[in-house]
Amino acid sequence: MNADKIPDIIIGRLPIYLRALQRMSEKGKKTTSSQELGDYVGISAAQIRKDISQFGEFGKQGTGYSIPFLIDKLREILRVDRMWDVAVVGVGAVGHALVRYQGFSNRGFRIVMIFDVDPSKIGTRVGEFVVEDAAKLTDRVRAAKLRIAMLAVPATVAQDVADRLVQAGVKAILNYAPTNLNVPKGVHVQHIDPATHLQRMTYYLE
Amino acid sequence: MNADKIPDIIIGRLPIYLRALQRMSEKGKKTTSSQELGDYVGISAAQIRKDISQFGEFGKQGTGYSIPFLIDKLREILRVDRMWDVAVVGVGAVGHALVRYQGFSNRGFRIVMIFDVDPSKIGTRVGEFVVEDAAKLTDRVRAAKLRIAMLAVPATVAQDVADRLVQAGVKAILNYAPTNLNVPKGVHVQHIDPATHLQRMTYYLE
Repeated sequence: MNADKIPDIIIGRLPIYLRALQRMSEKGKKTTSSQELGDYVGISAAQIRKDISQFGEFGKQGTGYSIPFLIDKLREILRVDRMWDVAVVGVGAVGHALVRYQGFSNRGFRIVMIFDVDPSKIGTRVGEFVVEDAAKLTDRVRAAKLRIAMLAVPATVAQDVADRLVQAGVKAILNYAPTNLNVPKGVHVQHIDPATHLQRMTYYLE
Repeated sequence: MNADKIPDIIIGRLPIYLRALQRMSEKGKKTTSSQELGDYVGISAAQIRKDISQFGEFGKQGTGYSIPFLIDKLREILRVDRMWDVAVVGVGAVGHALVRYQGFSNRGFRIVMIFDVDPSKIGTRVGEFVVEDAAKLTDRVRAAKLRIAMLAVPATVAQDVADRLVQAGVKAILNYAPTNLNVPKGVHVQHIDPATHLQRMTYYLE
Protein backbone atom coordinates (compact mmCIF):
# COMPACT_ATOMS: atom_id res chain seq x y z
CA MET A 1 0.00 0.00 0.00
CA ASN A 2 1.44 3.31 -1.11
CA ALA A 3 -0.19 6.53 0.06
CA ASP A 4 0.77 8.34 -3.13
CA LYS A 5 -1.03 5.84 -5.30
CA ILE A 6 -4.53 6.02 -3.84
CA PRO A 7 -6.56 8.91 -5.30
CA ASP A 8 -7.53 11.52 -2.72
CA ILE A 9 -11.18 11.20 -3.75
CA ILE A 10 -11.14 7.64 -2.38
CA ILE A 11 -9.42 8.74 0.83
CA GLY A 12 -12.20 11.30 1.21
CA ARG A 13 -14.85 8.59 1.20
CA LEU A 14 -13.20 6.39 3.85
CA PRO A 15 -14.18 8.62 6.82
CA ILE A 16 -17.79 8.47 5.57
CA TYR A 17 -17.68 4.68 5.54
CA LEU A 18 -16.03 4.64 8.97
CA ARG A 19 -18.68 6.93 10.43
CA ALA A 20 -21.49 4.79 9.02
CA LEU A 21 -19.88 1.58 10.32
CA GLN A 22 -19.42 3.09 13.78
CA ARG A 23 -23.08 4.07 13.82
CA MET A 24 -24.10 0.54 12.74
CA SER A 25 -21.85 -0.85 15.47
CA GLU A 26 -23.48 1.39 18.10
CA LYS A 27 -26.79 -0.13 17.06
CA GLY A 28 -25.38 -3.59 17.75
CA LYS A 29 -24.83 -4.72 14.16
CA LYS A 30 -21.90 -7.09 13.60
CA THR A 31 -21.79 -7.57 9.83
CA THR A 32 -22.78 -5.63 6.74
CA SER A 33 -22.60 -5.84 2.96
CA SER A 34 -21.35 -3.31 0.42
CA GLN A 35 -24.99 -3.06 -0.69
CA GLU A 36 -26.26 -2.19 2.79
CA LEU A 37 -23.39 0.19 3.53
CA GLY A 38 -23.94 1.77 0.12
CA ASP A 39 -27.64 2.35 0.76
CA TYR A 40 -26.68 3.89 4.10
CA VAL A 41 -24.18 6.40 2.72
CA GLY A 42 -25.69 6.92 -0.73
CA ILE A 43 -22.77 5.43 -2.68
CA SER A 44 -23.00 2.42 -5.01
CA ALA A 45 -22.05 -1.01 -3.69
CA ALA A 46 -19.57 -1.42 -6.55
CA GLN A 47 -17.82 1.83 -5.65
CA ILE A 48 -17.54 0.81 -2.01
CA ARG A 49 -16.10 -2.60 -2.90
CA LYS A 50 -13.61 -0.94 -5.24
CA ASP A 51 -12.59 1.70 -2.70
CA ILE A 52 -12.07 -0.76 0.13
CA SER A 53 -10.25 -3.30 -2.04
CA GLN A 54 -7.52 -0.71 -2.65
CA PHE A 55 -6.28 -1.51 0.83
CA GLY A 56 -6.66 -5.28 0.96
CA GLU A 57 -9.19 -8.10 1.05
CA PHE A 58 -11.38 -7.11 3.98
CA GLY A 59 -14.67 -8.73 2.98
CA LYS A 60 -15.74 -12.29 2.32
CA GLN A 61 -17.75 -13.40 -0.68
CA GLY A 62 -21.24 -14.24 0.55
CA THR A 63 -20.82 -13.12 4.17
CA GLY A 64 -19.80 -9.50 3.54
CA TYR A 65 -17.82 -7.41 6.00
CA SER A 66 -17.28 -7.89 9.71
CA ILE A 67 -18.12 -4.43 11.09
CA PRO A 68 -15.62 -4.44 14.00
CA PHE A 69 -12.85 -5.70 11.70
CA LEU A 70 -13.55 -3.14 8.99
CA ILE A 71 -13.75 -0.34 11.60
CA ASP A 72 -10.32 -1.38 12.91
CA LYS A 73 -8.86 -1.48 9.42
CA LEU A 74 -10.27 1.91 8.42
CA ARG A 75 -9.06 3.48 11.68
CA GLU A 76 -5.61 2.08 10.97
CA ILE A 77 -5.62 3.28 7.34
CA LEU A 78 -6.82 6.75 8.33
CA ARG A 79 -4.35 6.75 11.27
CA VAL A 80 -7.08 7.43 13.79
CA ASP A 81 -6.23 4.26 15.72
CA ARG A 82 -4.43 6.78 17.98
CA MET A 83 -5.37 10.10 19.59
CA TRP A 84 -4.29 13.32 17.84
CA ASP A 85 -3.88 16.47 19.91
CA VAL A 86 -5.38 19.52 18.22
CA ALA A 87 -5.17 23.30 18.72
CA VAL A 88 -8.10 25.65 18.09
CA VAL A 89 -7.27 29.20 17.00
CA GLY A 90 -10.05 31.76 17.31
CA VAL A 91 -12.61 31.55 20.09
CA GLY A 92 -15.64 33.18 18.50
CA ALA A 93 -18.92 31.36 17.92
CA VAL A 94 -17.30 28.66 15.77
CA GLY A 95 -14.41 28.16 18.19
CA HIS A 96 -16.90 27.77 21.03
CA ALA A 97 -18.86 25.20 19.04
CA LEU A 98 -15.68 23.23 18.36
CA VAL A 99 -14.66 23.20 22.03
CA ARG A 100 -18.12 21.95 22.97
CA TYR A 101 -18.33 19.38 20.17
CA GLN A 102 -18.70 15.90 21.66
CA GLY A 103 -17.82 13.97 18.52
CA PHE A 104 -14.04 14.21 18.42
CA SER A 105 -12.80 11.90 21.16
CA ASN A 106 -14.10 8.59 19.84
CA ARG A 107 -12.93 9.48 16.36
CA GLY A 108 -9.26 10.16 17.02
CA PHE A 109 -9.04 13.80 18.09
CA ARG A 110 -8.66 15.76 21.30
CA ILE A 111 -8.52 19.53 21.60
CA VAL A 112 -5.64 20.44 23.93
CA MET A 113 -5.23 24.21 23.62
CA ILE A 114 -7.22 27.21 22.39
CA PHE A 115 -6.00 30.67 21.35
CA ASP A 116 -7.37 34.11 20.61
CA VAL A 117 -5.91 37.59 20.03
CA ASP A 118 -8.66 39.42 21.93
CA PRO A 119 -7.34 40.64 25.33
CA SER A 120 -10.87 40.40 26.76
CA LYS A 121 -10.91 36.66 25.95
CA ILE A 122 -7.34 35.70 26.88
CA GLY A 123 -7.28 34.08 30.30
CA THR A 124 -11.02 33.36 30.35
CA ARG A 125 -12.36 29.83 30.47
CA VAL A 126 -14.18 28.11 27.61
CA GLY A 127 -15.31 24.64 28.60
CA GLU A 128 -12.33 23.04 30.30
CA PHE A 129 -9.81 25.35 28.61
CA VAL A 130 -8.23 28.69 29.40
CA VAL A 131 -7.95 30.87 26.30
CA GLU A 132 -4.26 31.51 25.57
CA ASP A 133 -2.69 34.53 23.89
CA ALA A 134 -2.35 33.92 20.14
CA ALA A 135 1.00 35.74 20.28
CA LYS A 136 2.37 32.59 21.92
CA LEU A 137 0.83 30.30 19.30
CA THR A 138 3.99 29.27 17.45
CA ASP A 139 5.98 28.50 20.59
CA ARG A 140 3.18 26.62 22.31
CA VAL A 141 2.22 24.53 19.28
CA ARG A 142 5.85 23.69 18.53
CA ALA A 143 6.60 22.72 22.13
CA ALA A 144 3.56 20.43 22.22
CA LYS A 145 4.54 18.96 18.83
CA LEU A 146 1.01 19.43 17.50
CA ARG A 147 0.43 18.42 13.89
CA ILE A 148 -3.22 19.48 13.58
CA ALA A 149 -5.03 22.78 14.11
CA MET A 150 -8.53 24.13 13.53
CA LEU A 151 -8.67 27.69 12.30
CA ALA A 152 -11.74 29.69 13.34
CA VAL A 153 -10.46 33.24 12.84
CA PRO A 154 -11.71 35.99 10.50
CA ALA A 155 -10.77 35.61 6.82
CA THR A 156 -8.56 38.70 6.95
CA VAL A 157 -6.07 37.13 9.39
CA ALA A 158 -6.41 33.46 8.38
CA GLN A 159 -3.33 33.34 6.13
CA ASP A 160 -1.13 34.94 8.78
CA VAL A 161 -2.27 32.46 11.43
CA ALA A 162 -1.86 29.56 8.99
CA ASP A 163 1.72 30.68 8.28
CA ARG A 164 2.50 30.65 11.98
CA LEU A 165 0.93 27.23 12.45
CA VAL A 166 2.98 25.83 9.57
CA GLN A 167 6.11 27.40 11.05
CA ALA A 168 5.30 25.62 14.31
CA GLY A 169 5.16 22.26 12.55
CA VAL A 170 1.43 21.86 11.87
CA LYS A 171 0.73 19.60 8.88
CA ALA A 172 -3.07 19.59 8.76
CA ILE A 173 -5.37 22.61 9.05
CA LEU A 174 -9.13 22.51 9.21
CA ASN A 175 -10.01 25.99 8.00
CA TYR A 176 -13.34 27.59 8.98
CA ALA A 177 -12.33 31.03 7.68
CA PRO A 178 -14.14 31.67 4.38
CA THR A 179 -10.95 32.10 2.36
CA ASN A 180 -8.29 30.00 0.69
CA LEU A 181 -4.94 29.36 2.35
CA ASN A 182 -1.56 29.06 0.68
CA VAL A 183 0.52 26.41 2.42
CA PRO A 184 3.70 24.57 1.48
CA LYS A 185 3.64 21.12 -0.09
CA GLY A 186 3.16 18.50 2.60
CA VAL A 187 0.70 20.63 4.56
CA HIS A 188 -2.93 19.64 4.15
CA VAL A 189 -5.93 21.96 4.32
CA GLN A 190 -9.61 21.15 4.43
CA HIS A 191 -12.20 23.91 4.28
CA ILE A 192 -15.51 24.17 6.09
CA ASP A 193 -17.60 27.03 4.77
CA PRO A 194 -21.38 26.73 4.98
CA ALA A 195 -21.92 29.23 2.15
CA THR A 196 -19.85 27.24 -0.38
CA HIS A 197 -21.63 24.04 0.67
CA LEU A 198 -25.01 25.73 0.19
CA GLN A 199 -24.01 27.15 -3.19
CA ARG A 200 -23.10 23.68 -4.36
CA MET A 201 -26.73 22.71 -3.79
CA THR A 202 -28.53 25.81 -5.08
CA TYR A 203 -27.13 25.00 -8.51
CA TYR A 204 -29.65 22.17 -8.62
CA LEU A 205 -32.64 24.10 -7.28
CA GLU A 206 -35.32 25.67 -9.41
CA MET B 1 -26.34 24.26 -20.75
CA ASN B 2 -27.90 21.21 -19.17
CA ALA B 3 -27.68 20.76 -15.41
CA ASP B 4 -27.64 16.98 -15.70
CA LYS B 5 -24.64 16.94 -17.97
CA ILE B 6 -22.12 18.79 -15.80
CA PRO B 7 -20.37 16.49 -13.31
CA ASP B 8 -21.09 17.36 -9.68
CA ILE B 9 -17.35 17.51 -8.95
CA ILE B 10 -17.16 20.55 -11.24
CA ILE B 11 -20.19 22.16 -9.62
CA GLY B 12 -18.41 21.68 -6.29
CA ARG B 13 -15.45 23.76 -7.45
CA LEU B 14 -17.50 26.73 -8.71
CA PRO B 15 -18.28 28.11 -5.21
CA ILE B 16 -14.52 27.99 -4.47
CA TYR B 17 -13.79 30.03 -7.60
CA LEU B 18 -16.59 32.44 -6.77
CA ARG B 19 -15.32 32.95 -3.22
CA ALA B 20 -11.77 33.61 -4.46
CA LEU B 21 -13.01 36.05 -7.12
CA GLN B 22 -15.12 37.91 -4.56
CA ARG B 23 -12.08 38.23 -2.32
CA MET B 24 -9.97 39.52 -5.24
CA SER B 25 -12.74 41.99 -6.06
CA GLU B 26 -12.82 43.23 -2.45
CA LYS B 27 -9.13 43.96 -2.82
CA GLY B 28 -9.88 46.11 -5.88
CA LYS B 29 -8.70 43.71 -8.58
CA LYS B 30 -10.57 43.93 -11.91
CA THR B 31 -9.09 41.08 -13.99
CA THR B 32 -7.43 37.74 -13.38
CA SER B 33 -6.06 34.77 -15.29
CA SER B 34 -6.73 31.07 -14.85
CA GLN B 35 -3.11 30.83 -13.69
CA GLU B 36 -3.53 33.45 -10.97
CA LEU B 37 -6.91 32.10 -9.85
CA GLY B 38 -5.43 28.60 -9.86
CA ASP B 39 -2.50 29.63 -7.65
CA TYR B 40 -5.00 31.27 -5.32
CA VAL B 41 -7.24 28.23 -4.87
CA GLY B 42 -4.66 25.48 -5.37
CA ILE B 43 -6.17 24.08 -8.57
CA SER B 44 -4.40 23.91 -11.95
CA ALA B 45 -5.01 26.64 -14.51
CA ALA B 46 -5.97 24.00 -17.09
CA GLN B 47 -8.62 22.57 -14.75
CA ILE B 48 -10.08 26.00 -14.08
CA ARG B 49 -10.26 26.84 -17.80
CA LYS B 50 -11.90 23.49 -18.47
CA ASP B 51 -14.42 23.87 -15.62
CA ILE B 52 -15.46 27.38 -16.58
CA SER B 53 -15.64 26.63 -20.31
CA GLN B 54 -18.43 24.10 -19.56
CA PHE B 55 -20.72 27.08 -19.15
CA GLY B 56 -19.59 29.33 -21.98
CA GLU B 57 -16.76 31.50 -23.22
CA PHE B 58 -16.17 33.81 -20.27
CA GLY B 59 -12.48 34.61 -20.73
CA LYS B 60 -10.48 36.28 -23.47
CA GLN B 61 -7.24 34.91 -24.91
CA GLY B 62 -4.45 37.14 -23.63
CA THR B 63 -6.51 39.34 -21.32
CA GLY B 64 -7.97 36.60 -19.08
CA TYR B 65 -11.16 37.03 -17.09
CA SER B 66 -12.99 40.17 -16.06
CA ILE B 67 -13.54 39.57 -12.34
CA PRO B 68 -16.94 41.38 -12.05
CA PHE B 69 -18.20 39.60 -15.18
CA LEU B 70 -17.08 36.16 -14.01
CA ILE B 71 -18.56 36.78 -10.54
CA ASP B 72 -21.90 37.67 -12.15
CA LYS B 73 -21.80 34.57 -14.35
CA LEU B 74 -20.91 32.22 -11.49
CA ARG B 75 -23.59 33.72 -9.27
CA GLU B 76 -26.09 33.16 -12.07
CA ILE B 77 -24.94 29.57 -12.69
CA LEU B 78 -25.03 28.73 -8.97
CA ARG B 79 -28.38 30.55 -8.65
CA VAL B 80 -27.10 32.83 -5.92
CA ASP B 81 -27.90 35.92 -7.96
CA ARG B 82 -30.95 35.97 -5.67
CA MET B 83 -31.48 35.66 -1.90
CA TRP B 84 -32.48 32.25 -0.49
CA ASP B 85 -34.35 32.09 2.80
CA VAL B 86 -33.03 29.40 5.11
CA ALA B 87 -34.24 27.67 8.30
CA VAL B 88 -31.90 26.54 11.07
CA VAL B 89 -33.00 23.54 13.13
CA GLY B 90 -31.17 22.99 16.42
CA VAL B 91 -29.97 25.93 18.48
CA GLY B 92 -27.02 24.42 20.30
CA ALA B 93 -23.45 25.67 19.86
CA VAL B 94 -23.44 25.07 16.10
CA GLY B 95 -26.87 26.65 15.62
CA HIS B 96 -25.70 29.71 17.54
CA ALA B 97 -22.59 29.94 15.38
CA LEU B 98 -24.72 29.74 12.22
CA VAL B 99 -27.08 32.49 13.40
CA ARG B 100 -24.10 34.72 14.16
CA TYR B 101 -22.22 33.91 10.96
CA GLN B 102 -21.70 37.11 8.97
CA GLY B 103 -20.79 35.44 5.69
CA PHE B 104 -24.19 34.40 4.33
CA SER B 105 -25.86 37.59 3.19
CA ASN B 106 -23.46 38.61 0.45
CA ARG B 107 -23.34 35.05 -0.83
CA GLY B 108 -27.02 34.42 -1.45
CA PHE B 109 -28.45 33.24 1.88
CA ARG B 110 -30.48 34.67 4.71
CA ILE B 111 -31.57 32.81 7.83
CA VAL B 112 -35.26 33.55 8.44
CA MET B 113 -36.33 31.15 11.20
CA ILE B 114 -34.73 28.96 13.87
CA PHE B 115 -36.16 25.96 15.72
CA ASP B 116 -35.41 23.79 18.71
CA VAL B 117 -37.24 21.10 20.69
CA ASP B 118 -35.94 22.25 24.08
CA PRO B 119 -38.74 24.03 26.04
CA SER B 120 -36.10 26.10 27.85
CA LYS B 121 -34.92 27.49 24.51
CA ILE B 122 -38.27 27.97 22.73
CA GLY B 123 -39.31 31.60 22.90
CA THR B 124 -35.85 32.88 23.83
CA ARG B 125 -33.91 35.22 21.55
CA VAL B 126 -30.78 34.23 19.64
CA GLY B 127 -29.39 37.16 17.70
CA GLU B 128 -32.37 38.76 15.96
CA PHE B 129 -34.47 35.58 16.11
CA VAL B 130 -36.92 34.04 18.53
CA VAL B 131 -36.43 30.27 18.82
CA GLU B 132 -39.56 28.52 17.55
CA ASP B 133 -40.98 25.17 18.63
CA ALA B 134 -39.65 22.40 16.37
CA ALA B 135 -43.10 20.78 16.58
CA LYS B 136 -44.27 23.53 14.21
CA LEU B 137 -41.37 23.00 11.82
CA THR B 138 -43.23 21.38 8.93
CA ASP B 139 -46.07 23.90 8.91
CA ARG B 140 -43.84 26.93 9.24
CA VAL B 141 -41.32 25.83 6.61
CA ARG B 142 -44.08 24.89 4.17
CA ALA B 143 -45.94 28.15 4.69
CA ALA B 144 -42.77 30.15 4.08
CA LYS B 145 -41.99 28.01 1.00
CA LEU B 146 -38.42 27.45 2.18
CA ARG B 147 -36.25 25.23 0.01
CA ILE B 148 -33.10 25.20 2.18
CA ALA B 149 -32.43 24.22 5.80
CA MET B 150 -29.39 23.79 8.00
CA LEU B 151 -29.57 20.89 10.40
CA ALA B 152 -27.67 21.29 13.67
CA VAL B 153 -29.40 18.67 15.81
CA PRO B 154 -27.97 15.53 17.49
CA ALA B 155 -27.30 12.58 15.19
CA THR B 156 -30.00 10.51 16.87
CA VAL B 157 -32.82 12.79 15.69
CA ALA B 158 -31.31 14.05 12.43
CA GLN B 159 -33.14 11.61 10.14
CA ASP B 160 -36.52 12.39 11.71
CA VAL B 161 -35.99 16.13 11.34
CA ALA B 162 -34.75 15.67 7.77
CA ASP B 163 -37.91 13.69 6.94
CA ARG B 164 -40.06 16.53 8.23
CA LEU B 165 -38.09 19.12 6.29
CA VAL B 166 -38.49 17.10 3.10
CA GLN B 167 -42.19 16.75 3.78
CA ALA B 168 -42.36 20.53 4.09
CA GLY B 169 -40.79 20.98 0.66
CA VAL B 170 -37.11 21.48 1.50
CA LYS B 171 -34.81 20.47 -1.36
CA ALA B 172 -31.38 21.21 0.10
CA ILE B 173 -30.11 20.31 3.57
CA LEU B 174 -26.79 21.32 5.04
CA ASN B 175 -26.31 18.65 7.67
CA TYR B 176 -24.08 19.28 10.71
CA ALA B 177 -25.22 16.12 12.50
CA PRO B 178 -22.46 13.50 12.28
CA THR B 179 -24.60 10.96 10.48
CA ASN B 180 -25.85 10.16 7.00
CA LEU B 181 -29.34 11.10 5.89
CA ASN B 182 -31.63 9.17 3.59
CA VAL B 183 -33.57 11.56 1.39
CA PRO B 184 -35.66 11.10 -1.75
CA LYS B 185 -34.21 11.74 -5.19
CA GLY B 186 -34.26 15.43 -5.95
CA VAL B 187 -33.31 16.41 -2.39
CA HIS B 188 -29.68 17.44 -1.95
CA VAL B 189 -27.60 16.98 1.19
CA GLN B 190 -24.17 18.33 2.03
CA HIS B 191 -22.41 17.26 5.21
CA ILE B 192 -20.24 19.30 7.51
CA ASP B 193 -18.48 17.13 10.08
CA PRO B 194 -15.14 18.31 11.43
CA ALA B 195 -14.08 14.77 12.41
CA THR B 196 -14.48 13.37 8.88
CA HIS B 197 -12.60 16.36 7.46
CA LEU B 198 -9.78 15.80 9.94
CA GLN B 199 -9.67 12.06 9.19
CA ARG B 200 -9.25 12.82 5.52
CA MET B 201 -6.01 14.61 6.43
CA THR B 202 -4.58 12.27 9.08
CA TYR B 203 -4.30 9.61 6.36
CA TYR B 204 -1.38 11.66 5.01
CA LEU B 205 0.32 12.33 8.35
CA GLU B 206 3.22 10.33 9.75
